[in-house]
Amino acid sequence: MASTNSNLEKIIVGVDPGTNVMGYGILRIVGNKAELIAMGVIELKKYESHYLRLGKIFERITGIIDAYKPDEMAIEAPFFGKNVQSMLKLGRAQGVAITAAIMRDIPITEYEPKKIKMAITGNGNASKEQVAGMLQRMLKISKEEMDIQFDATDALGAAYCHFIQQGKPKTENKCSSWKEFILKNSDKVH
Amino acid sequence: MASTNSNLEKIIVGVDPGTNVMGYGILRIVGNKAELIAMGVIELKKYESHYLRLGKIFERITGIIDAYKPDEMAIEAPFFGKNVQSMLKLGRAQGVAITAAIMRDIPITEYEPKKIKMAITGNGNASKEQVAGMLQRMLKISKEEMDIQFDATDALGAAYCHFIQQGKPKTENKCSSWKEFILKNSDKVH
Repeated sequence: MASTNSNLEKIIVGVDPGTNVMGYGILRIVGNKAELIAMGVIELKKYESHYLRLGKIFERITGIIDAYKPDEMAIEAPFFGKNVQSMLKLGRAQGVAITAAIMRDIPITEYEPKKIKMAITGNGNASKEQVAGMLQRMLKISKEEMDIQFDATDALGAAYCHFIQQGKPKTENKCSSWKEFILKNSDKVH
Repeated sequence: MASTNSNLEKIIVGVDPGTNVMGYGILRIVGNKAELIAMGVIELKKYESHYLRLGKIFERITGIIDAYKPDEMAIEAPFFGKNVQSMLKLGRAQGVAITAAIMRDIPITEYEPKKIKMAITGNGNASKEQVAGMLQRMLKISKEEMDIQFDATDALGAAYCHFIQQGKPKTENKCSSWKEFILKNSDKVH
């Protein structure tokens, strides 16, 4: 029996790479529904060495890929920062996360924080609380779990933004507003 | 027979990570003499995808480490850049090179371009040609080979700077001028 597009199953891993805290969120997509598989935070502050932190990011992302076998990776990737120093540091963390995916042949899509917020709440300037609240409702996550894993919000948001994105024509390669998505894809809203 | 410090042999790999061209240089240190083992350039421009370039950096540096089994890695690492965009890109390349070393337990030292130039020529604003000329003479590299591998100059310079550094007290954790090094360590100059 040939599977139709709407019955396709895939796993999306969302990653928010940072050198203090790294968040991740894993979604299973079945047809046009998204389900939370796992979300978590990797604390890196305990490692004093910046190098060791980068090594841990590589090891943990490789571990997550091997455990959940995602088909695609979405990365929350700010393109602007306060200064060149912080961007260099952030770039290093991003580069490591990207390489972990590349070494396992996982295609990567990057999303700017504003686009993720816009996609999920309809407001590019939404607070982290608003994004978390919306994800909690849409993915039916308990408030307690969402509170504990608050630092994984951006990563889960990236994965969800990527899920919304898949319903769009490929030429329109950006994650637009959730409201717009609802209007265009009312069959995909659950 | 116990080996004395001056008879210690080690391999230093110098790396200049970039997303267009990546240079590397490998030195064998025996006692207080440095010898060129290999130098080269990895062209990344041919890969259109930025992600693929990062993957190639990881693969090639891992390959170089496995082939030459260096004891230490020196990285040419600019801390300042034109803008946040270029620093983010550079940071990604640096992060990948660093992670390749970390995954093989190779200790890393970073050197700013100015410090490398200062260490080798005595002038922090020396041209690339001046650095290449000095390395060519000090390591007895033929002019033809140096010309072909010109883009590996910064990487080889990082490795040589790290070699000079090892003669210094550990508290003074920076690569100072070559002239100063000659004055302090006339027995190490060859």
